[in-house]
Amino acid sequence: MRETQTVKNIYMNSYSTKRTIIGHVERGTDLYDSITRIAHQYNIKLGRVTGLGAVQRAKLAYYDQKEMKYNDFDLNEPMEIVSMYGNISLKNGKPFVHAHVVLSDKKGNARGGHLLPGSSVFACELTIEEFEGPELIRGFDERTGLTLWPKEKIL
Amino acid sequence: MRETQTVKNIYMNSYSTKRTIIGHVERGTDLYDSITRIAHQYNIKLGRVTGLGAVQRAKLAYYDQKEMKYNDFDLNEPMEIVSMYGNISLKNGKPFVHAHVVLSDKKGNARGGHLLPGSSVFACELTIEEFEGPELIRGFDERTGLTLWPKEKIL
Amino acid sequence: MRETQTVKNIYMNSYSTKRTIIGHVERGTDLYDSITRIAHQYNIKLGRVTGLGAVQRAKLAYYDQKEMKYNDFDLNEPMEIVSMYGNISLKNGKPFVHAHVVLSDKKGNARGGHLLPGSSVFACELTIEEFEGPELIRGFDERTGLTLWPKEKIL
Repeated sequence: MRETQTVKNIYMNSYSTKRTIIGHVERGTDLYDSITRIAHQYNIKLGRVTGLGAVQRAKLAYYDQKEMKYNDFDLNEPMEIVSMYGNISLKNGKPFVHAHVVLSDKKGNARGGHLLPGSSVFACELTIEEFEGPELIRGFDERTGLTLWPKEKIL
Repeated sequence: MRETQTVKNIYMNSYSTKRTIIGHVERGTDLYDSITRIAHQYNIKLGRVTGLGAVQRAKLAYYDQKEMKYNDFDLNEPMEIVSMYGNISLKNGKPFVHAHVVLSDKKGNARGGHLLPGSSVFACELTIEEFEGPELIRGFDERTGLTLWPKEKIL
Repeated sequence: MRETQTVKNIYMNSYSTKRTIIGHVERGTDLYDSITRIAHQYNIKLGRVTGLGAVQRAKLAYYDQKEMKYNDFDLNEPMEIVSMYGNISLKNGKPFVHAHVVLSDKKGNARGGHLLPGSSVFACELTIEEFEGPELIRGFDERTGLTLWPKEKIL
């Protein structure tokens, strides 16, 4: 069994789907802030975000695992949103969005990273699921420098 | 609040999941047309499409936001489908598929774009959810040149 | 109708969502093996896996469609998991994970492929849905050299 050597702690809980929010975001709107706005409006304490569309420009980040800090970078050209995946959970008592995107340029080359405020929508169609079950609240994790979900071992 | 400056109109509705269609598509089949066929067969008026697999070759597009037209390009090599995400909604009275894919080549380099007919499946496993709720019907949007969902402001 | 020319066999069934497993995986853990472990622990016979996060390094593969074999490659640098999509189904009587990932480096360049054991998590947040309905059991497919789901034509 390879698992015994390679699998450390896994923290999982079981949830049910409450509702699914579907719709789109107007041209010129900030992508990250829109999702945050939806999460606040619908009071989504735990959710999953998926979407596709295009941006007029994007601001992404790469996490430097050694320095434990995000390095931002700008993609100042229109690009397709070829994948957007994220989640919503609680941080400092409010719904917080963590999303990654893959974008592609006019030659089809793909870029990706952690989505930041500063990415402007050209068109974007979103599907956001809300889940019911144990709360997941983000807290600071010393080992990674990130705000992660709790380490209450379930599995 | 950053939102007040950066968030314009967001159009969202609440849905429930009706059923989930899971299966696979035979080698040599057109990827885009297959999804359309499934959407028609199951009469999916609103849905989400996800999948993975590989293609023998692909035809994708990049939307030129200034010229307001799609520019097609061909990737004439076998590639992995490393992400496929799309939706199904109504256009001209029939289920219409809007999907984006990320593909990767033998060196692992990723390409992406808007999926067009002309992409031939090597193997593809799909999960398609059908949603119940207010209809989303695509109509021409002058600001983008795209066929988008209605701008009935909910949020 | 383009379909009659381009669509061959499509094998689809209808499912309902049983439950959704959400959580995260500790730093230093093998990504592929973690998902397998979750699938075994929860006895997920059919599921969908999505996630985001970062890896310390990755081992991916590209399937050579002509030679009918996977070619592995290593990405020995910290990268963002900008998309992870996969499924769980039965193979040799046990839950088996098939997943593809898109990763991005410090410059935002995206790489992708078939996820293998050997990818080490820095942080990873997972959402895994379990479906109820007809079993999907993988078996060897001569035409592709892959283990695919059955070809019982539904659609």
